Amino acid sequence: MLEKSNLFNEIYQQPEVLRRLLSEQHAVIAALAAEIKRRDIVHVVIAARGTSDNAGRYAQYLLGAVNRLSVGLATPSLFSIYKQPPRFGNALVLGISQSGKSPDIVAVLAEARKQGALTAAITNMPDSDLGQQADFVINQGAGEEKAVAATKTYTSQLAAIAMLSAELAGNSEMQSALGRMPEVVSATLHMNNAIARVAERYRYMRDCVVIGRGYNYATAFELALKMKELTYTIAEPYSSADFMHGPLALIEHGFPAIVIAPAGVVLPEMQEFIRTLRQREAEVIVISDDDATLAQARIPLKLPQPVPEWLSPIAAIVPGQLLAMHLAAVRDYDPDHPRGLRKVTETR
Amino acid sequence: MLEKSNLFNEIYQQPEVLRRLLSEQHAVIAALAAEIKRRDIVHVVIAARGTSDNAGRYAQYLLGAVNRLSVGLATPSLFSIYKQPPRFGNALVLGISQSGKSPDIVAVLAEARKQGALTAAITNMPDSDLGQQADFVINQGAGEEKAVAATKTYTSQLAAIAMLSAELAGNSEMQSALGRMPEVVSATLHMNNAIARVAERYRYMRDCVVIGRGYNYATAFELALKMKELTYTIAEPYSSADFMHGPLALIEHGFPAIVIAPAGVVLPEMQEFIRTLRQREAEVIVISDDDATLAQARIPLKLPQPVPEWLSPIAAIVPGQLLAMHLAAVRDYDPDHPRGLRKVTETR
Repeated sequence: MLEKSNLFNEIYQQPEVLRRLLSEQHAVIAALAAEIKRRDIVHVVIAARGTSDNAGRYAQYLLGAVNRLSVGLATPSLFSIYKQPPRFGNALVLGISQSGKSPDIVAVLAEARKQGALTAAITNMPDSDLGQQADFVINQGAGEEKAVAATKTYTSQLAAIAMLSAELAGNSEMQSALGRMPEVVSATLHMNNAIARVAERYRYMRDCVVIGRGYNYATAFELALKMKELTYTIAEPYSSADFMHGPLALIEHGFPAIVIAPAGVVLPEMQEFIRTLRQREAEVIVISDDDATLAQARIPLKLPQPVPEWLSPIAAIVPGQLLAMHLAAVRDYDPDHPRGLRKVTETR
Repeated sequence: MLEKSNLFNEIYQQPEVLRRLLSEQHAVIAALAAEIKRRDIVHVVIAARGTSDNAGRYAQYLLGAVNRLSVGLATPSLFSIYKQPPRFGNALVLGISQSGKSPDIVAVLAEARKQGALTAAITNMPDSDLGQQADFVINQGAGEEKAVAATKTYTSQLAAIAMLSAELAGNSEMQSALGRMPEVVSATLHMNNAIARVAERYRYMRDCVVIGRGYNYATAFELALKMKELTYTIAEPYSSADFMHGPLALIEHGFPAIVIAPAGVVLPEMQEFIRTLRQREAEVIVISDDDATLAQARIPLKLPQPVPEWLSPIAAIVPGQLLAMHLAAVRDYDPDHPRGLRKVTETR
């Protein structure tokens, strides 16, 4: 019974986890924002892997577009293997890790602290090694995540980043839009039955591409990762722009492309991209709240509530989580224990 | 006849292109290095797409490990679509583009110049829009690249970055190792016949993963891109560390994994990774100069000359280029004109 799996339960815990995060972590995030301003920080370096790295991609766009910070993703092996760490200068170094345990991520923060850079962590384990290296620890407070595939810890990482962005911007409109997200995610979970039916169609899909751009570049990566972890589909994420620089050659009749295209400034570009895919006879699955865009899809997955573009990744990943979960069930795979994976991956 | 294709010719022009670059671009690179030092620059932001983005990945590791610069890859859509450019502060903003034409990459440099940041370009078209936005223009001088899939322009971008690193380090040992690379690449091209035979084995391979780490993370991305462009194989690149955080679930009996593992500090980690792949019964193809590592492979592809690890990506991509070219031929695809692609991709 899928409904008894940890994965199902954790997907459904997301509204509650978001509600708790929004109410409990405001003070530490406000303090971090104040320190970023006090130090007049322009550069942010993020250290993360797997699902947390996808949350880092969201931070790259959000903190860039809204807060005009230059955000780069760190190369942890420079710290852990080459042992030749770059200088951080006056950067914020942000570690993101559910477990707070991966030695390479901890090594980046330890070096940053040694250099005197400002350090912060977003983690579900505030007492972890990672938490201990951080000047500011944002506690995801998501409760234990038992399923190997991360779901509630991903959306809570996104929300923590969104809270930081709203705080840095000092924007009360952003704050109140953020306050509605638990309800939005709750409504998005109603897509479950429709997605359970759609999953049957992809029983024998062997590979696919997942496309997003801007804020939802992160969603493309995370959706592809869920498909790989839970369904063993070769799912490759791309921005629509990068896809045009080479990988477009892959597309042939029936090739499945999942396109994440909620309303926003990126939408016209995504619509044009969907037309290109259709000309090449791809099977186009669209996740969107925009009816005209959904009308272009072979399989439309309609997000029930419109949200501001900058918050859309928190809702847009939910149908992806549900699709990967149901496709795992359709294929008789254990949703809680993907083959070959453990919950905590300790890489150097 | 493959030997008459532009792709074949351009792969074989690489030693000559490198020789020319090394002799003609030294002055401008020395001037750029001096300006980086004069401004006491710590942060570098790179704007690039496709093959050039893979050269950017090399820069991220090389300029980080050797020159202790924090290097991030830009998010061009923040400039071209969101029109909310981040602040660069005292960063070097480096555009990499063969054609110098893609509007989104040009937009990043134009904004950087407006902000007063130091700008530089590595391009095969110094008079292009990109060249005109750069304070320093490194001319790849690779001659016209007629095949759609980039080869000689990739290795010349790598070499330009290596020259910059050696110049910043003021290290004559690095300079002389670099001077030997045309000869090393020439020797590496002798792998051609062996690879032509190996390509037959993969006639019906539908998907694969390509793994590299550290300096050769770039090689994994570029090899995967050549496979996608030329052979329409779903080839997904990973660092060995990221692969352990989820995608490992994909591996089943016979799943093809191409591992780039030349000698260097990353090698023990790659050897351990190969053992993990073999335990899961993957088909392991290894590109290496290390006999013990090659002995672990189902299909070993031996690099004929050892090179320092920091320069190994310039040689290690060559068997990848040859493999993709021969596999295209084995599959009766046109090596010069992949379906659906044009030489210059102008993305916003």
